[in-house]
Amino acid sequence: MNQPSDKALVPFVSVDNMMRLVHHVGIEQVLCDLAAYIEADFKRWELFDKTPRVASHSDVGVIELMPTSDGEAYGFKYVNGHPKNTSEGLQTVTAFGLLADVYTGYPVLLTEMTILTALRTAATSAMVAKYLAPKGADTMAMIGNGAQSEFQSLAMKAICGVTSVRLYDQDPAATEKCARNLDGTGLKVVRCTSPESAIEGAHILTTCTADKQCATILTDNMVGSGVHINAIGGDCPGKTELAPGILSRSDVFVEYPPQTRIEGEIQQMAPDFTVTEMWEVISGTKPGRRDNRQITLFDSVGFAIEDFSALRYIRDRIKDTDYFFDLDMLADPDDPRDLFGMLQRAAP
Amino acid sequence: MNQPSDKALVPFVSVDNMMRLVHHVGIEQVLCDLAAYIEADFKRWELFDKTPRVASHSDVGVIELMPTSDGEAYGFKYVNGHPKNTSEGLQTVTAFGLLADVYTGYPVLLTEMTILTALRTAATSAMVAKYLAPKGADTMAMIGNGAQSEFQSLAMKAICGVTSVRLYDQDPAATEKCARNLDGTGLKVVRCTSPESAIEGAHILTTCTADKQCATILTDNMVGSGVHINAIGGDCPGKTELAPGILSRSDVFVEYPPQTRIEGEIQQMAPDFTVTEMWEVISGTKPGRRDNRQITLFDSVGFAIEDFSALRYIRDRIKDTDYFFDLDMLADPDDPRDLFGMLQRAAP
Repeated sequence: MNQPSDKALVPFVSVDNMMRLVHHVGIEQVLCDLAAYIEADFKRWELFDKTPRVASHSDVGVIELMPTSDGEAYGFKYVNGHPKNTSEGLQTVTAFGLLADVYTGYPVLLTEMTILTALRTAATSAMVAKYLAPKGADTMAMIGNGAQSEFQSLAMKAICGVTSVRLYDQDPAATEKCARNLDGTGLKVVRCTSPESAIEGAHILTTCTADKQCATILTDNMVGSGVHINAIGGDCPGKTELAPGILSRSDVFVEYPPQTRIEGEIQQMAPDFTVTEMWEVISGTKPGRRDNRQITLFDSVGFAIEDFSALRYIRDRIKDTDYFFDLDMLADPDDPRDLFGMLQRAAP
Repeated sequence: MNQPSDKALVPFVSVDNMMRLVHHVGIEQVLCDLAAYIEADFKRWELFDKTPRVASHSDVGVIELMPTSDGEAYGFKYVNGHPKNTSEGLQTVTAFGLLADVYTGYPVLLTEMTILTALRTAATSAMVAKYLAPKGADTMAMIGNGAQSEFQSLAMKAICGVTSVRLYDQDPAATEKCARNLDGTGLKVVRCTSPESAIEGAHILTTCTADKQCATILTDNMVGSGVHINAIGGDCPGKTELAPGILSRSDVFVEYPPQTRIEGEIQQMAPDFTVTEMWEVISGTKPGRRDNRQITLFDSVGFAIEDFSALRYIRDRIKDTDYFFDLDMLADPDDPRDLFGMLQRAAP
């Protein structure tokens, strides 16, 4: 065994260590911390290198790389999207991510990101709802009770003060699973048997269903004034959840317009449909919610900067802990020109 | 510790295991095997998804992602290029790579690629020289004696029958290092003190210098007829090694024209300068070398498909060996919709 130098070692956070870290910090605290990191990066949105995601499509799914950089650190996420996987006992989405030092180009963190993406997606939704939801909003309808539903519910509790969630899924078993998982978290959980029933009295409507098809989870007549819609599930071409009429009546907020116009709910609208970039609201240059009658809609598709914030958080948080181990991933010969010599000296 | 399922585990080849594997197989055999994998993929070039590399530039370097797919597997390489690193005791280039299954989107291999890139670059050069070098070529000038030089020399020996290498570098210490490393490999090694001396009697001229600047390593009057030039070092905008006059007199062969016109030697020429795609020569649809007077020039910048071939080789070669270990990198709950439940059950 040849001992690599420190620079050749990349801290790695496994799924097991990510779960241990989350339990050590506390899941609601992690969601709050992530929301703070994401909010900080939205405030300096303009200085990021916003490369579009790089997608490789096949008949059954997509594999994407989502890179970004703030000039000091560089991050990317590998993520797949395979809706048919669920029926084969696999995750629709798996992910891992990497953070590197822009100055040297050397990676400084490799981490699982399936769990981390679920956490950052929920933290982003709740951080945005803090700006857009009507004052005193304490009830959320959670429509679609899949893998993201409990994370959304807890983030809205921890960050926005939601106390009650009304669950609906076309599969009652999903609702039952979500309700069971939220038992003991302090949230009041109501199982509903129709979307209409789920949105009764709710100030925040979160839609997060998984089918890759244009579905209408919320019809126009279901949505009254004064609510905030948190639309998570419409996130690729051909996949939307809301009736176009709702979009017309709403003020729509997005992460990054060029991406959202392709992947988000607004793919149903004209290319010049008016949207507000969320970073402008958070940095104080554009208004968020103006009155209690307004319908606000966060058309969220997930953006690389949110992953970057999550990677920064994990890098900072694992310092001086044992929630990682070092991977011998980079060759680092004593003399940089002597890679061959390093290989030769490793001969048995 | 929660036991992840098989699907959550990604085989990982560390630097140490890569070196053990190379010594186990034998470096010349690895180079021959890699050349065969690369040649096979050049023969089916047209079916690859040829996404351009995704670069993030800074004042001091570049970080790139190089993805590609053949429809069954998907691969990408992370690679940095930081010329100033050498003066700080770091590698100019470090790399790692990943192979995934297109059908599920799940990664199936993570591997160091600093050593593997050095091997695949040399294997590509030699595989191409097999088609383009004049018959009976047995002497190579190796101009630039950095990290790639020994790999180039051994690949040309193993794949093209080169028996003698003539080394030159502006830094005599680099030449000395290269000569020492090649001692005992069976190659006749000649240390030269000028480029003019290095190319004396050589049929293959390999240029591989590292500075990010337009340099003229070979001037027009140095290159006579009947040679094959293997130009490795010109591989980013603003970095070239050959006088334009040489390009005008040569038949130029490239990997992927849209990339080479930006990064290769031909960035010095008009946008419609005639080049031949190497895959067309290898698949038999275009001629390679036509006569013994011709100057052939492989303007190599490195392409994602070569990394893909190398990843395929490593995936195949580590089967039933202990040159890898499994990383718990992908969350894989029993019920795909119950990611939260998996996290909850991991509570201490």
